[in-house]
Amino acid sequence: MNGSSFGNYFKITTFGESHGAALGVIVDGCPAGVLLSAEYIQSYLDRRRPGQNLYSTPRKENDLVEILSGVFEGKTTGTPIALLIRNESQRSADYSEIASYYRPGHADFTFDAKYGFRDYRGGGRSSGRETAARVAAGAVACALLKELGITVCAYAKSIHETVCFETKEYLSERFSLSELAAMRDQSPLNMPDSKASALAESFLNEMRGRHDSAGGTIECVLSGLPAGLGDPVFDKFDARLAQAMLSVGAVKGFEIGSGFEAAILTGTEQNDAFYTEEDGSVRKRTNRAGGVLGGMTDGSDVLFRVAVKPTPSIGAPQETIKKDGTSYTAKVTGRHDPVIVPRAVVVIECMAALTAADALLGNLGSRLEYLKKIYCES
Amino acid sequence: MNGSSFGNYFKITTFGESHGAALGVIVDGCPAGVLLSAEYIQSYLDRRRPGQNLYSTPRKENDLVEILSGVFEGKTTGTPIALLIRNESQRSADYSEIASYYRPGHADFTFDAKYGFRDYRGGGRSSGRETAARVAAGAVACALLKELGITVCAYAKSIHETVCFETKEYLSERFSLSELAAMRDQSPLNMPDSKASALAESFLNEMRGRHDSAGGTIECVLSGLPAGLGDPVFDKFDARLAQAMLSVGAVKGFEIGSGFEAAILTGTEQNDAFYTEEDGSVRKRTNRAGGVLGGMTDGSDVLFRVAVKPTPSIGAPQETIKKDGTSYTAKVTGRHDPVIVPRAVVVIECMAALTAADALLGNLGSRLEYLKKIYCES
Amino acid sequence: MNGSSFGNYFKITTFGESHGAALGVIVDGCPAGVLLSAEYIQSYLDRRRPGQNLYSTPRKENDLVEILSGVFEGKTTGTPIALLIRNESQRSADYSEIASYYRPGHADFTFDAKYGFRDYRGGGRSSGRETAARVAAGAVACALLKELGITVCAYAKSIHETVCFETKEYLSERFSLSELAAMRDQSPLNMPDSKASALAESFLNEMRGRHDSAGGTIECVLSGLPAGLGDPVFDKFDARLAQAMLSVGAVKGFEIGSGFEAAILTGTEQNDAFYTEEDGSVRKRTNRAGGVLGGMTDGSDVLFRVAVKPTPSIGAPQETIKKDGTSYTAKVTGRHDPVIVPRAVVVIECMAALTAADALLGNLGSRLEYLKKIYCES
Amino acid sequence: MNGSSFGNYFKITTFGESHGAALGVIVDGCPAGVLLSAEYIQSYLDRRRPGQNLYSTPRKENDLVEILSGVFEGKTTGTPIALLIRNESQRSADYSEIASYYRPGHADFTFDAKYGFRDYRGGGRSSGRETAARVAAGAVACALLKELGITVCAYAKSIHETVCFETKEYLSERFSLSELAAMRDQSPLNMPDSKASALAESFLNEMRGRHDSAGGTIECVLSGLPAGLGDPVFDKFDARLAQAMLSVGAVKGFEIGSGFEAAILTGTEQNDAFYTEEDGSVRKRTNRAGGVLGGMTDGSDVLFRVAVKPTPSIGAPQETIKKDGTSYTAKVTGRHDPVIVPRAVVVIECMAALTAADALLGNLGSRLEYLKKIYCES
Repeated sequence: MNGSSFGNYFKITTFGESHGAALGVIVDGCPAGVLLSAEYIQSYLDRRRPGQNLYSTPRKENDLVEILSGVFEGKTTGTPIALLIRNESQRSADYSEIASYYRPGHADFTFDAKYGFRDYRGGGRSSGRETAARVAAGAVACALLKELGITVCAYAKSIHETVCFETKEYLSERFSLSELAAMRDQSPLNMPDSKASALAESFLNEMRGRHDSAGGTIECVLSGLPAGLGDPVFDKFDARLAQAMLSVGAVKGFEIGSGFEAAILTGTEQNDAFYTEEDGSVRKRTNRAGGVLGGMTDGSDVLFRVAVKPTPSIGAPQETIKKDGTSYTAKVTGRHDPVIVPRAVVVIECMAALTAADALLGNLGSRLEYLKKIYCES
Repeated sequence: MNGSSFGNYFKITTFGESHGAALGVIVDGCPAGVLLSAEYIQSYLDRRRPGQNLYSTPRKENDLVEILSGVFEGKTTGTPIALLIRNESQRSADYSEIASYYRPGHADFTFDAKYGFRDYRGGGRSSGRETAARVAAGAVACALLKELGITVCAYAKSIHETVCFETKEYLSERFSLSELAAMRDQSPLNMPDSKASALAESFLNEMRGRHDSAGGTIECVLSGLPAGLGDPVFDKFDARLAQAMLSVGAVKGFEIGSGFEAAILTGTEQNDAFYTEEDGSVRKRTNRAGGVLGGMTDGSDVLFRVAVKPTPSIGAPQETIKKDGTSYTAKVTGRHDPVIVPRAVVVIECMAALTAADALLGNLGSRLEYLKKIYCES
Repeated sequence: MNGSSFGNYFKITTFGESHGAALGVIVDGCPAGVLLSAEYIQSYLDRRRPGQNLYSTPRKENDLVEILSGVFEGKTTGTPIALLIRNESQRSADYSEIASYYRPGHADFTFDAKYGFRDYRGGGRSSGRETAARVAAGAVACALLKELGITVCAYAKSIHETVCFETKEYLSERFSLSELAAMRDQSPLNMPDSKASALAESFLNEMRGRHDSAGGTIECVLSGLPAGLGDPVFDKFDARLAQAMLSVGAVKGFEIGSGFEAAILTGTEQNDAFYTEEDGSVRKRTNRAGGVLGGMTDGSDVLFRVAVKPTPSIGAPQETIKKDGTSYTAKVTGRHDPVIVPRAVVVIECMAALTAADALLGNLGSRLEYLKKIYCES
Repeated sequence: MNGSSFGNYFKITTFGESHGAALGVIVDGCPAGVLLSAEYIQSYLDRRRPGQNLYSTPRKENDLVEILSGVFEGKTTGTPIALLIRNESQRSADYSEIASYYRPGHADFTFDAKYGFRDYRGGGRSSGRETAARVAAGAVACALLKELGITVCAYAKSIHETVCFETKEYLSERFSLSELAAMRDQSPLNMPDSKASALAESFLNEMRGRHDSAGGTIECVLSGLPAGLGDPVFDKFDARLAQAMLSVGAVKGFEIGSGFEAAILTGTEQNDAFYTEEDGSVRKRTNRAGGVLGGMTDGSDVLFRVAVKPTPSIGAPQETIKKDGTSYTAKVTGRHDPVIVPRAVVVIECMAALTAADALLGNLGSRLEYLKKIYCES
């Protein structure tokens, strides 16, 4: 009945429709003492902002964040952190027509089926704008991860059939995360391979000309996580990641480590060999597990991938129906990205950070010795 | 800190290790009035039971279920339903060796990393045996779905490179669910295509000879779900499904509808056209969405797929380490299936049923008119 | 780790400190279709507002509420309802001194003990101002209850030793809820007995002169609830009410029905006799149960009482310590009510409404026939 | 819809009816490494067992507990701990009559109102027998508290009008917890004052002769809790305690510290003065707060009291109705205690321990420095 919260320990609750007064989020459960500023959160929101290039919508959304609570003298206080983003560019007129019919690939029909009516302005609660609140919350999670030496990096791996470096491998096997981030930030499509990026750009131009759109994939890497995060059964680290990822509007698939390829591997190929480093730390020769064994992190990088469907709002004519059931030919006009992938990159990164922050807190009670460390030593 | 529960409304909590006294589950939140018997639950457990053919382990696990509470005079009472399965075949001796080293592809290392020590007998809590409790709970969910005219059907779609009917399509596009179930039940591998099943059997024989194992994929279809289940943001129907699926030990990937293929489709290809049936019901010409739009069911079949990794317990020699960090060559002996897919089919079906049951309950409060129907009409 | 949410189905999450930018709440899980306006919510906030008379603080807090999401065309949409109340009168200077010492009866010490430091301005998160967010959320719950014919009414039953009508009985045994509300609204202290109110006022004047403060009790009645709300074990209706009430800062005790008097009654005195009304409805001759049997509502009025401690901020000198452990004599100056009870009345009413709204939603899945009514009839 | 779980971090889920196959509980979230044996748990269950004297029912309930999972080599493993108690003495015949009518003071009517029908044997899920599962779980919580130097002690403070030592004070102000426990264990009524116990015994004999029953109060003290447990808003330590206590069947009231007396105290009387001990620790001169300030423990003993109603099952004739609405004169026969208080003492103690265990785990994420201590030091 309420599905606007994510996380059990580091818990966020979002609100807001694309054309209402504002979007926002409450982050509840963030430990006290984390350095946090509006500027830091803003830097994440700026990565999601549209209107930065040809391949994202020309809507002006400044998406300025305001911290309403939970931060005092530059640090989190342990109390809920509320973040507010006002909606500024609300051209509801653009959307008046879609009140009457069901856009294919959108939640118009299912919203009516569930609630009996809907806020039809710009997709309402199901708009991609909803992810702004996730990014704001994710920035808080990233601030916490940073304090613990943990890094998250996502990037566009492929757009339509153009794949970065034409490899199926995770790019983190070739580059460091900072290299990947730097290369990604050079591309208007968030692809860390400039050649692939250029190819994809020209494909997207073609799509735009045909009033069509394209899909793609995003890869994400979490580095520096301690071993043992996640729980052995339903709250496996990868199970929570999967929920987090599929909760992002356009995501249609999730795989961790070798993922779907595991289906055509044998046991000797899939299993990662353990060995001991000179410094005594436990490592694996390969990482087909994707950093998770039995639902718990194993100290390797967590590697996963998501499939993102093409933008459903397209200008090409489509068969559909009106609310009264009569047939209708829809041509969705308005300002829409021809591809969702580039702007979704920071959303995936933030959802991964939120999953990790939650698991870090959830793991604190796993051993009696941790409780003794906190309550009995001082 | 506690990850043994699944579902918010139809909630299950499991317990048990592979070599402890028993496994079991409490189902809390099942409505009163559902017909339920131990025989019905047993029929689901029997589908998961090993020792039925060459491709599953020869362990004798009768897995007899006992209903401890929550059922009175053949019907659920609304109070928690506790289900108990005693462990009978506990040859702990088989596993004494693995106490000392970390099996590749298993949770031995991560368990120690998380808790400081582990119940090393047969994988303990991370054993595939844990899924017996899920299946028992899933049978209760299926009993509820049946009362509401909802069907779930899973089957092995591929084993290694052998794919049923050599098609990428969901088989429900060709066959009815009852046909699929009947064809599946003829195959020792739960593959609804007898030709593919025979091919896969011979491949598995080869694998067994090489002390190796194989992976595969499972497809699952939910039919008869009302439109509107699932919530628009974090508790999207497909997000909950994804968590449910990745929570199953060997699952490495999840896709809904067109899934990863959506990444190489265009908007015109991916979007499903709506139309109105003669009886006035809303339908879609295609189902690349997989029955979920904006996280809510759209009244079509829900179609999804999971990737299952090869059995990690293999007899072939593998590099690994002992608990003290010294290197070790592991050959995992004991009674292990050369492929997990066939026995996982009913587990996937049950996790899907549990997800659906939870969403059915969670949706009851979506409209004021539903409350009025229940509290104000009588 | 996160304690800012209340309710499992009709769930609220609050945020905000007394001297931060704003207070607010997200209501998640409210059914679609409930009539709701900012004016309606404001009318509840106005009942909580200080500065209305001598017995509440002269602080100017307009407490204007803004609806940020979840309402469209005058009705709730089923998506989260975010409510924002800006802090306007922030004379932080008043509070600068209390940063250095621990006020007796306040959370200053425990905040530091938990989080390591605190937002010391005006009590921060532990300020009574936090209840403004509860009242805003409670107004939404009241809007839902109204649609279902349910009424909630709270009033000051006693202040210090002055008890309304000098009776231990619940006043709803003598007056209708609308009479009680009307009488209550005549009293600056929210006491429905004008004589008692006058006596209490003179006592409070005396307290103010002595820089001291007073406690009291509040009674609350929920009328029109269907039988069967609440769950038989941990989520008993009265157990949730008790949590709701003790979660209000100054509340030190809770009793339902005969409450503490039950300890000196015998079984024949405590048990309520059932009988059947001429219209066939089941009634009870008495209501010592307070409307709850076995944790579930029995169709009678739910009757309960809370004890409210005296305002801890008093001008009289008090022994305490500074943060560094040295002793200190505190005289808490600033604008403080000499009694909390009158302003807490609407808070109690709202927490009761929230508990009832949650139970109404939570009960929808109790019977298979309810699911059939919603999913199989149409 | 599911109300059989308690706790957010140290979470228990119970099942079982008084005349079903078994009662039991899953404890999920207990840290790994706690010493635990069936004998230890049994010692708590033995304190709850009836048939020990005249004032409790002569039913034979051996209540033997079996640990089904989660313990390995004498220590908890971090996985769910399932505890099973078989029902042995099931004389359902005794209860056949009550299927047809609603016992006053019982949940018969409300069960039917909620679920449409009920397991009428011996009160089913609402039987006092359900508390056996709580006690088993509470013993696990006590084992954890013991490791951290925390003690819980409850005792009967009054039965009907007989009050231990004729004082309103908490007895822990006069005696140490070990003295109180020792004195309590000498009394068949669990009253630590032998004189009061004898008086109450003779009153109960009189009640039994009149086929009537009596109520009373229980006091409970938690000692050794670190400061800072509990959350500042809805999950206040005392709010959770209140829910825990009211969730026990016969409890009608809860008060912490001065409780209802706070309503007639002034601020100078209620506020506790802080001072610093020679060893540098922060103390309070008095403890009218009951060890909780702003919902967080302050390092003092947590002191609270509950009111327990008289046993509702009485042999004296009572007016009531049958299921069909016709009037009926009930005389509840069978084996019933004339007072609930003595056997409820260990239940109260266990619910307090569960609340404390949950708060201890929930507090681990309150400060960044705690995370650094666990993840960054090694």
